[in-house]
Amino acid sequence: MAALEVAVSFAEKGETPAHDLIVIAWMNEEGCRFAPGMMGSEAFAGVRGLEAIRAMRDADGISAGEELDRLHASFPDLPRKPLGFVAAAYLELHSEQGPLLDTAERVIGVVTGIQGKKTFQVVLAGAEGHAGTLPQQERRDALAAFARTAAALHDEIGAIDAEIKFTIGRVTVEPNAPSVVPARVTFTIDLRHPDNAVLDAAGARVAALCHRYAPPCTVTIAPLVDAPSNDFDPGLRARIRRAAHDQGLPSMAILSAAGHDARHLAKVCPAAMIFIPCRDGASHVEHEWANPGHVAAGASALAQVARDLALADLPFAAGA
Amino acid sequence: MAALEVAVSFAEKGETPAHDLIVIAWMNEEGCRFAPGMMGSEAFAGVRGLEAIRAMRDADGISAGEELDRLHASFPDLPRKPLGFVAAAYLELHSEQGPLLDTAERVIGVVTGIQGKKTFQVVLAGAEGHAGTLPQQERRDALAAFARTAAALHDEIGAIDAEIKFTIGRVTVEPNAPSVVPARVTFTIDLRHPDNAVLDAAGARVAALCHRYAPPCTVTIAPLVDAPSNDFDPGLRARIRRAAHDQGLPSMAILSAAGHDARHLAKVCPAAMIFIPCRDGASHVEHEWANPGHVAAGASALAQVARDLALADLPFAAGA
Repeated sequence: MAALEVAVSFAEKGETPAHDLIVIAWMNEEGCRFAPGMMGSEAFAGVRGLEAIRAMRDADGISAGEELDRLHASFPDLPRKPLGFVAAAYLELHSEQGPLLDTAERVIGVVTGIQGKKTFQVVLAGAEGHAGTLPQQERRDALAAFARTAAALHDEIGAIDAEIKFTIGRVTVEPNAPSVVPARVTFTIDLRHPDNAVLDAAGARVAALCHRYAPPCTVTIAPLVDAPSNDFDPGLRARIRRAAHDQGLPSMAILSAAGHDARHLAKVCPAAMIFIPCRDGASHVEHEWANPGHVAAGASALAQVARDLALADLPFAAGA
Repeated sequence: MAALEVAVSFAEKGETPAHDLIVIAWMNEEGCRFAPGMMGSEAFAGVRGLEAIRAMRDADGISAGEELDRLHASFPDLPRKPLGFVAAAYLELHSEQGPLLDTAERVIGVVTGIQGKKTFQVVLAGAEGHAGTLPQQERRDALAAFARTAAALHDEIGAIDAEIKFTIGRVTVEPNAPSVVPARVTFTIDLRHPDNAVLDAAGARVAALCHRYAPPCTVTIAPLVDAPSNDFDPGLRARIRRAAHDQGLPSMAILSAAGHDARHLAKVCPAAMIFIPCRDGASHVEHEWANPGHVAAGASALAQVARDLALADLPFAAGA
């Protein structure tokens, strides 16, 4: 929405940008149905191939490729252009999804980078049996294995330092019946830290703990996402800082705890992000809320940087 | 099936039993869709009222009463009789669902009673949040609370003695998304032991451990089933033992680890059960299997006891 407003503001002022200004809604950033997400930006940046993305399946077994084909068939008149252009710069505006701006009473976050993230899918496989008859000592109870593994992971990985983020968010138990010893537990791990060395060590520790606590069940660990932390372009960050200053918006440098498409764009062009506060730092919850004045301020800062770039010579000099 | 064979065998031999012989398929013994199960025998024995049973809902929110009304409407010509009769005796034939007969190479189990069982539904409630931004120390992660609670329960309750059976069979996580800190975990506990004093102490310990490990999440514990262990009628057990002996079938006394409708019938009339072996003691699994010769032997022992009772005077004397 803010990017569309920026484009409209050029038209309303009768200005013609010196370079193309492209507004993009990346496909499947969140990854709720087809995980992991950020499919659009990964495809654009060459992080994942289109065939690998099309082959991914949702919980009902439908592939992303099948759904894309179905959508394209439903809108046959929509133009389909390959994204074959070279980007001179990339800007993304987002709510912080954390409490720092809100607590510090700043309106604009000049994002320095995105903390590193690893995700895994872990499968613990045992053997099902009758809850009333199978002797405890003969069981290979996948839920018991999950409980001790997950407890150890939360204890050890979750306590590395104040900056670690460790989450087991999705758990599937099979057959999931009250009177049957579970045969199989599948769960996801989401692990984040700004320091890549700490993140790598924590990732290795995750695997070691799963292997230690799974027996007598077997364990399979599939890495899904391995995204180290990154630094956004210093030149674009300086332009954002200046735009906030020019408009009288209090700003601060801030590290993004959440992942964004800008992570992947930063691999192929200068990229940066602008954050605005969200109430109580709450995000991915129903009561998530941003002050409309902050939303307008973010759009206004984005507009100034976009206008700034639209009139500048290419390539954009870092720190200009 | 075996009970129908017994009824048919009377007809084929031209015999008329001195008392009514009633073949019953009790409704919803297993409780897979509407839990807890054994609805038919509980209603007959007055353990649960019909209104309470009709009000129970499945995972889709459909009540047992609605389903019963729908089924009755689909078969309008089926006779519907209230079960207002007094039973003089109750017999039930089942596979052991455990390894004891198979290991001891006995064909007939003379069941002494059913081990006690308690089941609970536990809800741990915390607060959801973004997996990448919510600081670890500010989380009320319901999955983390579940992991440490379930690990402690398996460690402590599962290790009481060799006879305890402790199972967490069903777990539901909300919202169950990879990048969201879980807000709510609902799980079932199935706890069994032949000694009622041990079972009661274990049940109290379950509640204490949930309350100790849940914080900072809240915990709600709902008892679903509280069925103490019981002894089957000595007179009927003697008749089963004698039938096995008469037919040359090796038998042994055996405690049932699984629950059965006979548990509830034993409250309103003399009741007993006959077990036959199942391969490897496996039950509630796809590869569950009983030797056809053992199935026939069980039916044959059932037939002899039924004929024995059909010709005896009422009431049946214990130990006769």
